[in-house]
Amino acid sequence: MKKIQIYDTSLRDGTQSEDINLTNDDKLKIALKLDELGIDFIEGGWPGSNPVDMAFFNEIKKFSLRHAKIAAFGSTHHPGFTAENDPNLRNLLSSGADVCTIFGKTWDIHATEALRIPLELNLDIIHDSVAFLKSMGRDVVFDAEHFFDGFKANQEYALAAITAAYGAGAQTLSLCDTNGGTLPHEVYQIIQQIAKALPDAQLGIHAHNDCELAVANSIAAIQAGATHVQGTINGIGERCGNANLCSIIPTLELKFNDEYTTLGKEKLALLTSTSAFVTDVANIMPFNRQPFVGRSAFAHKGGVHASAVNRNSALYEHIDPEIVGNRQRVLLTELAGRANIVNMAKKFGFHLDKNEPVVKGLLNELKKRSSMGYDYAAAEASVELLLLKKLGRRGVREFFKLNQFRVLELKEAQDLDPISEASVIVEVEGVTEHTAATGRGPVNSLDNALRKALCNFYPRLSEMKLLDFKVRVMTAEDPAGGGTASFVRVLVESGDHLSRWVTVGVSYNIIEASWQAVADSITYKLYKDEHEQRAQIEKS
Amino acid sequence: MKKIQIYDTSLRDGTQSEDINLTNDDKLKIALKLDELGIDFIEGGWPGSNPVDMAFFNEIKKFSLRHAKIAAFGSTHHPGFTAENDPNLRNLLSSGADVCTIFGKTWDIHATEALRIPLELNLDIIHDSVAFLKSMGRDVVFDAEHFFDGFKANQEYALAAITAAYGAGAQTLSLCDTNGGTLPHEVYQIIQQIAKALPDAQLGIHAHNDCELAVANSIAAIQAGATHVQGTINGIGERCGNANLCSIIPTLELKFNDEYTTLGKEKLALLTSTSAFVTDVANIMPFNRQPFVGRSAFAHKGGVHASAVNRNSALYEHIDPEIVGNRQRVLLTELAGRANIVNMAKKFGFHLDKNEPVVKGLLNELKKRSSMGYDYAAAEASVELLLLKKLGRRGVREFFKLNQFRVLELKEAQDLDPISEASVIVEVEGVTEHTAATGRGPVNSLDNALRKALCNFYPRLSEMKLLDFKVRVMTAEDPAGGGTASFVRVLVESGDHLSRWVTVGVSYNIIEASWQAVADSITYKLYKDEHEQRAQIEKS
Repeated sequence: MKKIQIYDTSLRDGTQSEDINLTNDDKLKIALKLDELGIDFIEGGWPGSNPVDMAFFNEIKKFSLRHAKIAAFGSTHHPGFTAENDPNLRNLLSSGADVCTIFGKTWDIHATEALRIPLELNLDIIHDSVAFLKSMGRDVVFDAEHFFDGFKANQEYALAAITAAYGAGAQTLSLCDTNGGTLPHEVYQIIQQIAKALPDAQLGIHAHNDCELAVANSIAAIQAGATHVQGTINGIGERCGNANLCSIIPTLELKFNDEYTTLGKEKLALLTSTSAFVTDVANIMPFNRQPFVGRSAFAHKGGVHASAVNRNSALYEHIDPEIVGNRQRVLLTELAGRANIVNMAKKFGFHLDKNEPVVKGLLNELKKRSSMGYDYAAAEASVELLLLKKLGRRGVREFFKLNQFRVLELKEAQDLDPISEASVIVEVEGVTEHTAATGRGPVNSLDNALRKALCNFYPRLSEMKLLDFKVRVMTAEDPAGGGTASFVRVLVESGDHLSRWVTVGVSYNIIEASWQAVADSITYKLYKDEHEQRAQIEKS
Repeated sequence: MKKIQIYDTSLRDGTQSEDINLTNDDKLKIALKLDELGIDFIEGGWPGSNPVDMAFFNEIKKFSLRHAKIAAFGSTHHPGFTAENDPNLRNLLSSGADVCTIFGKTWDIHATEALRIPLELNLDIIHDSVAFLKSMGRDVVFDAEHFFDGFKANQEYALAAITAAYGAGAQTLSLCDTNGGTLPHEVYQIIQQIAKALPDAQLGIHAHNDCELAVANSIAAIQAGATHVQGTINGIGERCGNANLCSIIPTLELKFNDEYTTLGKEKLALLTSTSAFVTDVANIMPFNRQPFVGRSAFAHKGGVHASAVNRNSALYEHIDPEIVGNRQRVLLTELAGRANIVNMAKKFGFHLDKNEPVVKGLLNELKKRSSMGYDYAAAEASVELLLLKKLGRRGVREFFKLNQFRVLELKEAQDLDPISEASVIVEVEGVTEHTAATGRGPVNSLDNALRKALCNFYPRLSEMKLLDFKVRVMTAEDPAGGGTASFVRVLVESGDHLSRWVTVGVSYNIIEASWQAVADSITYKLYKDEHEQRAQIEKS
């Protein structure tokens, strides 16, 4: 098996995503998680470019990593300095990182137009920068910026540039498709040529996703002889992002009959949770359709697929989702059968028979409500609650009962924001609670008032966050004639430190629909916690 | 140039995305947009599988499309029927679609395990199904389900299956990577073999994105000889989605030195707006990092890149964003154009100079409000009103002024719908009106109360209807932390017998955001009517 080095640049190139902004603490957390996953190199930032990046290198030294080497990123020396007195290279050294990664120009036009220096001088700069870092005892990765575009424009010069880095002692020549415009067959051919020209050099690939081909380009590079691949968790990065390690790693491990190894197969089970961790820390929206690790990656909706998947997973799944720490989800649609309901109940520890009246009853209820617009394919938690309620004594108990809510919006002038206030009367554990709260809008006020009423009884509610809130107006299905009188469907996504769930509400009134979804979400959280607690007690 | 057929299945396979649920009206809108883009085939659904799909085929006939052919999807005939009396094939015929696309089993294990029939019988079923549809005068695309997995498991049988379809007269053999687990080099090799075995057949590719390789697989198939590619707008679809046509089309048009043509280069400028349109209609979150058409696709954040891009775009952009209807965004120093505003004003009959202060003022206002989430690309009527307001005396007058609104929602028991009431104090033509109304939900009540106040002054308001109402939560841009406290954007589409217009409102409070959009919409109607009246008078 050929070992392929995995070089993660989530903390440097990844933070060039326009919606990502990491604190030093965020970066440390992610680095430790990447180390746990078994990443070979963690590029922590560009010391000297900003204070957060330098702080990272100072802090990370205090941790003893299991496996990963820390890399610091920077450029070749400035034409105005020698390598020895270049502040940028000095910063790389003082970062204390095991590996220094420096980028240099390999596309002739970039030397002349962006750096505005003669082509020969650029080669000297590359050579001297690498040689200096080597002489100071550092391993050097040379990032050959715009290598593929450069090679297409001027083969001889691009080769000369990486040869300069190689001759000066660079450990790895990382060939970058900086603009992301190169195609897989081009990457393959060019890397084959370079491998022939520099047969003893270690070649790497650094791809961007501007043509949705970054994973394919990385794989093609490896097939052509590269043994080092750079990328980011979830493919975060500038413009369309970097090559997605969450796709490259399992593809190399699982799809090549053991020709390649990266982290080792046993580490793959951490992939889904690592992906979710980075999304959480960066506070960005997860991309549900993300391959291997996304929430929808193994979700089956189609009637034909869903029933076949029940018989034999391999029929409609390219890998077993558990290998990468993910799970299969069979979504309930209007066309779903009783078998799905029996399967779903099993998840909660209820063994039902297909012919029990409760199964038939639930199916009818689901069909009726789906035709009203309840989107149960999206809102699994609401389906589960419906099942648990139908199960009566065996299922979920009523954690609270609403007696009244009142929401008031008052806008007192054209240029003033409205004031929002909600009050709630609920029965909780035999006690009647009457609370009121303000909030940022009607749903937030209502949510605040309800939590106020419940939090003394159920303190773990404070762990729960509302993550997303979607409203869809169902004009076409509205018997009353469209517009602001339409039916609305509200989907609420909530989560705690353990999981995420989606609930649904439908009404012509957006406040009522939101209430239904929020109330379901809170009930789901409370049931889930009790269920887990019971399971813990039974174990011990 | 080799013509590659583009076959869109957004309306069929795309709707298998777990978060997508399209009404018939949604599907018609998208189909017309795809036709405008120049898509060759639009697969509208599976007639007979559900009422929405059949309704689509009945309705789409009423439109005369410019270029696209409509395709209906279904399976080969059921083993219990002959082709002639199979209800599924009958539905395909009665859909009236130009093209019938039927999928059949080509992986031996699927015939024996999913269909549970002998292998020979499956070949007969394929042959007879295609032959029957051909005999009824339809063009047939044969979707060879699981072709690549099938070919790897049993070459001879997979080839026999597509040969059966080909022999029966199928126009196109679309080879499907149904589970999405095949790699580009495998797709390339297998298609080359098939092209050798069936040299006169038209081959197609239908790829799924489970390894983040669907675009690469589609491109590899075309390089190996396929001339028909199936996919969806934005790569929507079950699990990780289908091959993304928004990436495949520009890659084929722009990256192969005119070796291939698809829609024609001049159509590419519609790509970004088509992508946004589908996202809007489906009411899903746009994926900012999406290649070519995403909001971030040409956004430059890094200091080095951003400054170099200002000097010479080609240094850090693989294509000119305007070719695909997108635009460059330099995030630190955003420089929008005044020329755009001058053009917009011209539409309303105002001839402004680029250097007038009003132009500069409007530009600043638009930038500020866009960064708050106002989607002026979708809500042109709101941009126009903003311009007209900035123009002062020359522009729009204030038809009404809000002094106060109050909205009350009262829910008196868990199983009762809330009661909704709104009151409004507005000044209209110098008179203060105080009105109250109930409605189906808070926004409808507010709309009713406002109209009650205005209708005596502006009777033509009764012609105006609110046609659609869309809510989008902008979690990512919310400084206060997501959930029910997020910013919401409301888009309202209104119309009268003459035209349709869209307005926008943004607030953390959904009632306030709705108010803004509704108030803009009413103002727009009143301005439009006065403007037309004036034009009439000037003419006569």
